[in-house]
Amino acid sequence: MQLSQRAVEAPASPIRRLIPYAEEATQKGKKIYYLNIGQPDIPTPGVYFEYAERYKPSVIAYTHSAGLPELREAFARYYERFGIQVSPSHIIVTNGGSEAVIFAMSVVADPEDEIVVLEPFYANYAGFASQLGIRLVPVRTYPEYGYAVPKKEKFLEVIGPKTKAIIFSNPSNPTGAVYDEQQLRTIADVAIEKDLFIISDEVYREFVFDGYRAISMLTFEEISNRIIVVDSISKRYSACGARIGTFVTKNKDLYAAAMKFAQARLCPSMMSQYGTIGLLTLDENYFQQIRLEYQARRDVVYEELSKIEGAVFKKPHGAFYIAAKLPIDNTENFVKFMLTEFEVDGKTTMVAPLDGFYITPGAGINEMRIAYVLDREKLRDAVRILNLGIEAYRKKMP
Amino acid sequence: MQLSQRAVEAPASPIRRLIPYAEEATQKGKKIYYLNIGQPDIPTPGVYFEYAERYKPSVIAYTHSAGLPELREAFARYYERFGIQVSPSHIIVTNGGSEAVIFAMSVVADPEDEIVVLEPFYANYAGFASQLGIRLVPVRTYPEYGYAVPKKEKFLEVIGPKTKAIIFSNPSNPTGAVYDEQQLRTIADVAIEKDLFIISDEVYREFVFDGYRAISMLTFEEISNRIIVVDSISKRYSACGARIGTFVTKNKDLYAAAMKFAQARLCPSMMSQYGTIGLLTLDENYFQQIRLEYQARRDVVYEELSKIEGAVFKKPHGAFYIAAKLPIDNTENFVKFMLTEFEVDGKTTMVAPLDGFYITPGAGINEMRIAYVLDREKLRDAVRILNLGIEAYRKKMP
Repeated sequence: MQLSQRAVEAPASPIRRLIPYAEEATQKGKKIYYLNIGQPDIPTPGVYFEYAERYKPSVIAYTHSAGLPELREAFARYYERFGIQVSPSHIIVTNGGSEAVIFAMSVVADPEDEIVVLEPFYANYAGFASQLGIRLVPVRTYPEYGYAVPKKEKFLEVIGPKTKAIIFSNPSNPTGAVYDEQQLRTIADVAIEKDLFIISDEVYREFVFDGYRAISMLTFEEISNRIIVVDSISKRYSACGARIGTFVTKNKDLYAAAMKFAQARLCPSMMSQYGTIGLLTLDENYFQQIRLEYQARRDVVYEELSKIEGAVFKKPHGAFYIAAKLPIDNTENFVKFMLTEFEVDGKTTMVAPLDGFYITPGAGINEMRIAYVLDREKLRDAVRILNLGIEAYRKKMP
Repeated sequence: MQLSQRAVEAPASPIRRLIPYAEEATQKGKKIYYLNIGQPDIPTPGVYFEYAERYKPSVIAYTHSAGLPELREAFARYYERFGIQVSPSHIIVTNGGSEAVIFAMSVVADPEDEIVVLEPFYANYAGFASQLGIRLVPVRTYPEYGYAVPKKEKFLEVIGPKTKAIIFSNPSNPTGAVYDEQQLRTIADVAIEKDLFIISDEVYREFVFDGYRAISMLTFEEISNRIIVVDSISKRYSACGARIGTFVTKNKDLYAAAMKFAQARLCPSMMSQYGTIGLLTLDENYFQQIRLEYQARRDVVYEELSKIEGAVFKKPHGAFYIAAKLPIDNTENFVKFMLTEFEVDGKTTMVAPLDGFYITPGAGINEMRIAYVLDREKLRDAVRILNLGIEAYRKKMP
């Protein structure tokens, strides 16, 4: 009577494994600035609740497995605002972006197959791949180059007969990098040359600064048959707990295949779907405010991080993350130190060690991710404390 | 650029594949009694909406990946009412019973492994198994014996070195059978002898009639290490679209393993979780009414079905289904006939062909499932029309 191998091998969440230290610190009365988790602090727009209330049914029934037709129509109109031409019949509404990734991986790869992933990557890809028996094969990006997409050759080096797809997020979680057309073209060229699918995770589409633009892979019309976009309202509308995402593809076979898995699990939450119809009525004005707020936060974090001597990073242009190499030996140990041994006026700062976002052994060991999901004043104080913590930690370093 | 094999092999939903015929019939003005799908017509209790409203947060945030602590406490108290001793740390709240089954299969079996299933079975087990690369191995039950659990030998015949678990639902979807202690003991004995896990799907726990009792596998204390119960509020509280289920096990390793997959997908819908806290305040009085209603419906359907000459079935004592063998050659063809060629006063009846609930080739070809989710008057009329339809179809049969 043994657990499955996939269960044994599945990685524990790198973000959550340090929580016990944080809980202990809190119990001891320490105040923690949580920069380790991508939970926005911005209120969920009221229109979510208005629509959930307005459509309140007498029976909370199963919806269509692809999602309510009126919600898929609203999503199609939303995508059109970005020049993405999709119809409701290209969209499956999912239990968060998570399930969209699971569906995407399921329809392109079998157990023992490989999917190439730009590393560091959204850590939960590894959990989904484990669950499905798929092997992730990393192509590394580096802090020195702002975690940009590497040259085509780097992909070709790792692609073999079992490789079925390339997955990445753009704007990137955890690095905040925004890939320009040329970088995406590199990925597209590799996919064409090696006959691969592309799974493009675009959940941070609106979070782009300094005039940068998040280009959707769905605008690469000539290879639309290879593309699956996975998406989510979680960060976009500060509605992480609604668990509404989308799986979008113009490839009819992929769509029909994903629908079989979607039908097996019946449907996403009905009330969340109604609420999301409300959210999708929000226009560009809403995002403009949000974007300015995040950009200002990014600026604060960037400015304060720049004061850390020996830190390696470039200014990121998207998402709400900054990743950086720190002048320390081991970020996980450093985070434990910050939680257990360090404080400034009763306060400390928690960041996410970046090694959990890599699968290459030893990679990212002294890198970290900051999620700038607090207001500017708190962020400034948090990164200042981080800097002081690094100084203190370095004195103790072996 | 090919789809994955698992996507190709995944079965289409047997319940949904006839929908186009139904849509066409409706367009032509025919009234259809839908007895093919298990969507209860009973209103979702108002307390669901009250609690969702009461707890309305400013940010719909991620919850704990195992579910809100107060919801897990409410579930533990709910289980205690049935003599099931579990604590919140044995429970993971899932996206419906569907995800609970996926987690359970994931932690007990690897790709190419086998899980024994009592056949006919809840059809979506096959979809989940396909997605996870697991092979379902059937042990058949028969209408002549009320679809009861067969003798131990029937299990031993199919269990091999790759077999990891046995899965079944009790009360049974699609048959309505309720397994007594002796039948469950057979399954337990097989699990002990062959060192297997048991995945017990207990979503119809409250739907038992004639003084029958649904025995939870979690009350088999001496083998609790082998047991995973998968559960759902969907039918229980007529809240299918809330997508709240539970994965319950006292095996700490299984629990920890499932938590890794739960953390990867973050959490179930926050508002659905709050609503469910409300539902769990309902006591036995609520179920007594529901049970009496379903029992009365079962009686009507049983009485009318008994008028069909040559139909083979026993009176079922649970869930809200009756399965039966019909005196016809092919139920799928018969359902198409009912939708396209037959009507009584502009009305017809749609049932679910049972072959989609089997994997043994050819099995269930002339069996059907009725979900008694309409009021009694409609049910009587629906089964009367079904009977007339069978007569008409038999005259046309090859």
